[in-house]
Amino acid sequence: MVPMNNLCTVRIGSITRAGRVEGDDIVVLDAADVGAVLRTGKQEETGNAIPRVTADLAPLITAPDKVICVGQNYLDHIREMGNEPPAAPTYFAKFSNSLIGARDDMILPPVDVSTHVDWEAELAIVIGSPVRHASSAEALDAVAGYTVLNDGSVRDYQRRTKQFLAGKMFEGLTPVGPVLVPATELGDGSGLTIRSSVDGVVKQDSNTDQLCFTVVDIVKDLSAITTLMPGDIIATGTPGGVGAARTPPEWLGDGSIVRCEIEGIGAVENRCVLPG
Amino acid sequence: MVPMNNLCTVRIGSITRAGRVEGDDIVVLDAADVGAVLRTGKQEETGNAIPRVTADLAPLITAPDKVICVGQNYLDHIREMGNEPPAAPTYFAKFSNSLIGARDDMILPPVDVSTHVDWEAELAIVIGSPVRHASSAEALDAVAGYTVLNDGSVRDYQRRTKQFLAGKMFEGLTPVGPVLVPATELGDGSGLTIRSSVDGVVKQDSNTDQLCFTVVDIVKDLSAITTLMPGDIIATGTPGGVGAARTPPEWLGDGSIVRCEIEGIGAVENRCVLPG
Repeated sequence: MVPMNNLCTVRIGSITRAGRVEGDDIVVLDAADVGAVLRTGKQEETGNAIPRVTADLAPLITAPDKVICVGQNYLDHIREMGNEPPAAPTYFAKFSNSLIGARDDMILPPVDVSTHVDWEAELAIVIGSPVRHASSAEALDAVAGYTVLNDGSVRDYQRRTKQFLAGKMFEGLTPVGPVLVPATELGDGSGLTIRSSVDGVVKQDSNTDQLCFTVVDIVKDLSAITTLMPGDIIATGTPGGVGAARTPPEWLGDGSIVRCEIEGIGAVENRCVLPG
Repeated sequence: MVPMNNLCTVRIGSITRAGRVEGDDIVVLDAADVGAVLRTGKQEETGNAIPRVTADLAPLITAPDKVICVGQNYLDHIREMGNEPPAAPTYFAKFSNSLIGARDDMILPPVDVSTHVDWEAELAIVIGSPVRHASSAEALDAVAGYTVLNDGSVRDYQRRTKQFLAGKMFEGLTPVGPVLVPATELGDGSGLTIRSSVDGVVKQDSNTDQLCFTVVDIVKDLSAITTLMPGDIIATGTPGGVGAARTPPEWLGDGSIVRCEIEGIGAVENRCVLPG
């Protein structure tokens, strides 16, 4: 189901509700989150509205069936590392408790677990309808829209073995939001400026036209493996400029403010906090 | 929550229900699956019972929050390949739609997608209570029990890039069951014979005392990364004897019967079928 307005998920007391963005307000919907709106196609209003600026944003999809990330997918970054574009997309996973809201604090691991926490600004696809063995046209039709995801990565755990998962599935290090912008607005997601900054200093600055495997390529390829379902999140990879690739390497620490922004969508901006 | 009896999940018409194994019967419980029993701690009976032998077994946990698999974890297999035991466990993921019941057909990928489908018999941990930053004792306390998992693997997709996920997340290739045997019966899961066969020919034959990282090691390590939740499934790796390591390599084909069995738990036995 491709929605027509920007959608978000807000916390109201101890529950979450989907919301439809209308100007400076969020019209609260009778659905637990954007995932529920996509699954049912329903946008019934509760009659309440809250200001955008003070809304407590939950993860855009609170319990996605799948969170799949694509690695090594920006041509500028691949080439600056002296590598050739790969023949197939690299996939790894996250789980739903990795996700936090667009303005939530990122609770860092205790320092005796790791101090090597890094940022990765990414364009994330949100699936709107079930899709399996898709053609290119069917792949794009299955995309509800796009959001911003910061693929928070704990590099020493990521590199402990050859499989990235240990460093990618840390709890609460993956902001996602602030809104779902429908594919009717952003088409195939190409041509969008993507940037990250830490404490106001720009770290990544690229454009989604540098994607090696496009949104259509990725959805088509994944649909040969499994049925993608409404609310599934697919992060499309990050451009050059992450902390681990800097000299010397840079890591997020207590108080760091990390912001990831994509043209036409908005930003996730999160403060890093050591656990108390 | 550590249950006292063997539990399973059965399909009844279009729904699933948890069941408690009592002799040759399954006492049907008022819970959607074993995951619901573990989350609530409740085993209210519906008053119905069905024979074990004809029960339509669903995946033991129908929608786990996480399915995490450990790779390269049997010492006999590591040594036969000429490798040293690793310093940290290798993790990769599956998603809930990878899972099927203990007697379900494995629907193979279309032959133009892949013909390289392989088996991996594994002891799977099922988490019973939330656990984070666990000590060894806390790690074992969080284990509800154990089941059998066949980590169906599509080797060409697994090896397309360095990340295994693409070959591990195929829909419907991971049987899990037939029952959850409580940790009160099986302790830390060590010392159990583990075997697989294809069309009656034994392919893997080892013992869980060959685990490089034990059940306690794995739960403790994962709990430093994320909160493990009731119903989470952690497959602990497979011994030598998989199809890809044979000369010539062996793959599951239309009509193959693959059986994975662990002492004290039982077996998943599944027929492979090409899609119609």
